[in-house]
Formats: sequence, C-alpha cells, structure tokens
Amino acid sequence: MITRAEQEAAQAYAVRELELAGIVLSEAERRSIEVADFGLSRLEETGLQLLVYVNTDRYCAKELVLQPGQTCPEHRHPPFHDAPGKEETFRCRQGLVYLYVEGDPAAEPAATPPPGRYTVFRELVLRPGEQHTIPPATLHWFQAGPAGAIVSEFSTASRDELDEFTDPDVRRSTVVR
Amino acid sequence: MITRAEQEAAQAYAVRELELAGIVLSEAERRSIEVADFGLSRLEETGLQLLVYVNTDRYCAKELVLQPGQTCPEHRHPPFHDAPGKEETFRCRQGLVYLYVEGDPAAEPAATPPPGRYTVFRELVLRPGEQHTIPPATLHWFQAGPAGAIVSEFSTASRDELDEFTDPDVRRSTVVR
Repeated sequence: MITRAEQEAAQAYAVRELELAGIVLSEAERRSIEVADFGLSRLEETGLQLLVYVNTDRYCAKELVLQPGQTCPEHRHPPFHDAPGKEETFRCRQGLVYLYVEGDPAAEPAATPPPGRYTVFRELVLRPGEQHTIPPATLHWFQAGPAGAIVSEFSTASRDELDEFTDPDVRRSTVVR
Repeated sequence: MITRAEQEAAQAYAVRELELAGIVLSEAERRSIEVADFGLSRLEETGLQLLVYVNTDRYCAKELVLQPGQTCPEHRHPPFHDAPGKEETFRCRQGLVYLYVEGDPAAEPAATPPPGRYTVFRELVLRPGEQHTIPPATLHWFQAGPAGAIVSEFSTASRDELDEFTDPDVRRSTVVR
C-alpha cells in the first residue's frame, strides 16, 4: 500500500528523469505512469515506475524508471495459452542497472537484494547503450545503481497479472489509499 | 546504389542525431547502422538510416533516423506463414514526421512525395512524444520535416525482405560500391 502523496512523488520523479534523458512524453502519458510497490509498502526499496508506450496482443514497449537503489523483485513470465512466456529485452538508457538472471551466480554480486526471497545471481551490469534479452520463463530481478536508472523494455505482449514472484508476499498490484 | 562515402556520411549523420537526442549507442551499434537507398540511388530524397536494437522471432525494436525531408517509400508488410503481417508502432522522438496510411486522404497533404508511386494519403503528423500504430498489411510511407526526424519503431518481428513496395522500381536492398 502506498499513499496518494507517495504515488504522486514517484510519478513526478519518473517524469523528471525521463525529461532529463530527453524523452518527450504527452500529458496523458505523464498522468499514466504506474507506480508499483509490489504489495510490500516499501516503495523506495522495492518498487518500480512504469510508462507503457504500447502493449498490443503481439508486442510491448515500456520505459522502466528506478529510483536510486530501487529493486524490482524476482519473478518470471510463465507460458500463456499456446505461447511461451513473455520474452523481454532490457536496454539501459540512463544510470546503471544490476540485472540478475538464472545461471552461474556471481561470486560477489554488486547488488544486495532487499529483504525477501531472491534465488538467482547470474549478474549483468547494464550501463547506457547496453542491453540484455531475457528468455521466456526465466527468473530475474534487477536493482538500480546509486543514481537510479532508466531502462527501455522491448518485449512480447505484457500480461503483468500473470507474473510469478519468488517471494509469496509479493503482489503485482498496488493499493493506493 | 550508393558510394561507400555516401554510406559513411549517412551513418555519421545518424550517430550524431541519436547522440544529440541523448541516445547512447555501443561502438558495435554505431558501426551496424544500416543505410537504405531502396535501390533508387537518390539517398537524400528517398532513404532511411536504421539502427536495430533487437529483432527476435517475436518482436523488434529499432530507431529510424531520417535526414531533412527524406522519405521512406510506400510499402506494406504482408502476412507470413500463419501470422498476420508485421504490426508496428512509430513513436517520434525528435523532429517531425509526416506519416501516410490507408484511409481518408488529406485534402492538402503537408508532405509532397518524391518521384515514384504513392497511393495512400491519410495523414498523421507526429511530433516528439506522439505515436501511431500501423495494423498489419496496411500501406504506409513517411517523410521527415525540414529538420529531420528520429522515430522509435516497436513491432512484431521484422522481415524487411518481405516488404511489398508500391513502386516496382523500389528494392529493399542497397548496393554499396
């Protein structure tokens, strides 16, 4: 749960960061920025700001804005109907993002996960101009560096409500009171 | 056909415009920028500079860079195997782009097409932060305004070799001599 004031402050942060990065938004887009606390009520620690440009039945494009040190918790995109799970490419635009996926774990991960359940530690450090494609149904989580991050996400259709989180306390929906 | 010098100048133009827009590219990406003259050997008039971020079997993301007044000729993306044709969203990042698609023709189109065959004139004027999604198999063409344009393209998988051009003289491939 987040307060309306927290939601508005996080939206304003995302708008400012996107504008500083030279990304022009329409007024309707500025108002549409989603603030997700993943049901944990610790937005600055575990959370995400999302701007969806387009999400058709076939593809999706978004900007993900992370506050300094903010973490998107570990999850996977399961198969849906006859299709494999969501496949997604993360491209760092601004700042620095530590991305963790299934595979050989880093001996000393650069990021420390917040409280919760984190099980994959293959590390990819993405700086502006660097990107990584995550195969369907692969566990992943990510954390912004100390100056925050903007990450462009290109993917198949997005069905956030299907995401499977490793931590049973995590919810994709956010309550604003 | 374009000369190596023309190709390199167009690549350098695209790199400069993308960097001015705050878009950071890797060295490999800078070298990979495609310059298309559509077989007409009139690059500044009919042509396109393309940077492909990712093109999987399921989705694609690119930046299209247009020189001032440069036109991408009319074409459609036909169905392929069991799938409908490519569906694509054009989002203007920088400059101004005149996009023409099937539908009610503009009484006085803002853009004048270059020599060739142009048959659709429903007009969409896209400025930074504005976007339009083109359904599969829909004829379309576009022209940059007087300061050029950067257009982000989000789409289903890209199979440029399947594009069907209205003008029989147009080829998707470009010969560099």
